[in-house]
Amino acid sequence: MANERTVLRTRVGIVGGGPAGLMLSHLLARAGIENIVVESRDADTISTTHRAGILESGAVALLTDTGVDGRVLTLGDEHAGIDLRFNGESHPLDFRELVDATVTLYAQNEVFVDLAAARERDGGDVRFGSEVTAVLDLETETPKFRFTAADGGEFEVHCDLLVGADGSRSFCRRQIPESNRRDFTVKYPFAWFGILAEAPKSSPELIYANSPHGFALVSQRSETVQRLYFQCDPGEDVDAWSEDRIWSELQRRVDGPDGFTLKTGPIFEKTVLPFRSFVREPLSHGRLFLVGDAGHTVPPTGAKGLNLAFADVRVLFEAIDSFYSTGNAGLLEGYSDTALRRVWKAQNFSYWMTTMLHTPPDAEPFMLKRALGELDTVTGSRYGQQYLAESYTGWPHG
Amino acid sequence: MANERTVLRTRVGIVGGGPAGLMLSHLLARAGIENIVVESRDADTISTTHRAGILESGAVALLTDTGVDGRVLTLGDEHAGIDLRFNGESHPLDFRELVDATVTLYAQNEVFVDLAAARERDGGDVRFGSEVTAVLDLETETPKFRFTAADGGEFEVHCDLLVGADGSRSFCRRQIPESNRRDFTVKYPFAWFGILAEAPKSSPELIYANSPHGFALVSQRSETVQRLYFQCDPGEDVDAWSEDRIWSELQRRVDGPDGFTLKTGPIFEKTVLPFRSFVREPLSHGRLFLVGDAGHTVPPTGAKGLNLAFADVRVLFEAIDSFYSTGNAGLLEGYSDTALRRVWKAQNFSYWMTTMLHTPPDAEPFMLKRALGELDTVTGSRYGQQYLAESYTGWPHG
Repeated sequence: MANERTVLRTRVGIVGGGPAGLMLSHLLARAGIENIVVESRDADTISTTHRAGILESGAVALLTDTGVDGRVLTLGDEHAGIDLRFNGESHPLDFRELVDATVTLYAQNEVFVDLAAARERDGGDVRFGSEVTAVLDLETETPKFRFTAADGGEFEVHCDLLVGADGSRSFCRRQIPESNRRDFTVKYPFAWFGILAEAPKSSPELIYANSPHGFALVSQRSETVQRLYFQCDPGEDVDAWSEDRIWSELQRRVDGPDGFTLKTGPIFEKTVLPFRSFVREPLSHGRLFLVGDAGHTVPPTGAKGLNLAFADVRVLFEAIDSFYSTGNAGLLEGYSDTALRRVWKAQNFSYWMTTMLHTPPDAEPFMLKRALGELDTVTGSRYGQQYLAESYTGWPHG
Repeated sequence: MANERTVLRTRVGIVGGGPAGLMLSHLLARAGIENIVVESRDADTISTTHRAGILESGAVALLTDTGVDGRVLTLGDEHAGIDLRFNGESHPLDFRELVDATVTLYAQNEVFVDLAAARERDGGDVRFGSEVTAVLDLETETPKFRFTAADGGEFEVHCDLLVGADGSRSFCRRQIPESNRRDFTVKYPFAWFGILAEAPKSSPELIYANSPHGFALVSQRSETVQRLYFQCDPGEDVDAWSEDRIWSELQRRVDGPDGFTLKTGPIFEKTVLPFRSFVREPLSHGRLFLVGDAGHTVPPTGAKGLNLAFADVRVLFEAIDSFYSTGNAGLLEGYSDTALRRVWKAQNFSYWMTTMLHTPPDAEPFMLKRALGELDTVTGSRYGQQYLAESYTGWPHG
């Protein structure tokens, strides 16, 4: 005998309760638009799975201006620049001086914690540990989805609008008929080997290093924990790398006449991060709208992932708000085009930073020299520095 | 019986009498440094072989500030911007407003005419129609080269310094031992189909157009003659293209909602321009120094060819002048590194403009969208516009 299926009715059904889904839910609730969020993972898992995050000032403002707890301002680490390192030399870019902007290092799981707390405080309907099993009737005025709750209960949500905020392996995305979609991808012949180490900061600002041995990124999680990455083979086996081997590989990628030396310490996490660029077009189908990683993935070099998700959410929220306050679906119909414009700028920026800083194993020697010529041009020109700084800290929202 | 070989002695022997070789000869003569230029082609051939040219303001100043006839100021066509056209829309960049600089359209063969006249006026020793047959003793303090003059006479030039200014098929370049040289190249899967047509300007500024059908460049030679190019297959047969077919191919690459229409007229020249990026490192070997196309080739998209040759000449002239006035060879020894720094910036710029504007036949769809995202970012940002404008009009000389 089949379980009884409970029908829930709401205006906006949101599949996915990561930062994108919760931020949209939060904004809609503030505007008085009822919504339900369904997320397959439990809240503890998301809270405790560390994911690095670099927030544009626009993303920070979206949190603080809308009444989410201000932990981002106290726990977040504001950075006013980066260091582009190549040919063994440092080239600091001062974002505040160049474009009057900063970014904030604040882990994505902390953003989740803050948003989840805000939704709970405000009485939001967010169901964790709930697996979506079907998405139905997208091309009607009452799209639906079904989910199995954490306690085994079966539900069907009827809504006006359905949002796929369910990440890079999006279930919602796959429900769009093949004839109505087009995917754009790039695969890279490298990945990032990421470590966490108990050691104080090696440098006040993040270092993006181009070296003959490959890219390295020197970052930090806190005053006592460093986050470092180095370009590796996508099939790299982390167990084959001893602490000594990792530190010497990282050090040789930042070596230079200035004698810059990494601060080392015990390594307590080693992971390989895959590298991919992906865009789905369009970002909507009927009454389904994709936001964030469900619609597009960027490689981590430009740190645009979460920022782009929030940018989507901002555009979609304004469209939904306009739909309910005026009855006009114009902005909703334009959502995909509007959001994709920023998506492609961010895709280009991420691709640019990636190719300028990495040394693919099969690269033509010309291309390695060209990348150094580009770094020299950008860092040697105030306009070049400003162009990069503006992209890194985030273009104005239109 | 072998011909008698006449020995000539000079300080600087210059192989190649195109704009680079003649400009160096001119600067050296002004500094009282004796030199001889030997060029295989005759002067009439060079004068009358039309080659487009876009001069950075620094290149114009190098002509006018050193007493070459000022025809470039009266016949040259000063341009204060370009139009980047994509998605069927125009995006004008105003160089004067953005970076307070301009460029000047002035054909390379006219630059040659002016420099040849200045050398003749000043009593320079320039031998046209003279084929260099050997280059000797590069690693000694008396490098030499042999040539057969236009009248069949055989000569051997003994000098202190030897300069290879003999173009992209440089004879001098090939005399450097393989163990002492490295070449960097990129081949592109396209070429330019160039035409000259009797028609007034289609647009006041040059149009660089990215279109789904491939790149097009709308330029002009004079008030009554247009110069236009469109991306084509490197093996394209110009005879297979009727006038109608050419004009409709060009027109569809600039089509847009603004109804922009090319001005057409009889086509009197059709050529396919090959596309290649090339750099030889180092640019010197013993007492041989390479300048201009002998050392590097850029694709025409960035219009950097002649400008880069003049930049080399400027650096080499200062090094030679220092060598004779102080006896110190330091700047000469640094010539290659100093010149290569600008070369790689220009190579990067040319590659950047090329990839951003062309649509390679085998391109991944992601890359076409990325290029449009890049054009949108550059044109949508004042910093981006300035970064491109500064590169196009020429970085300051260090």
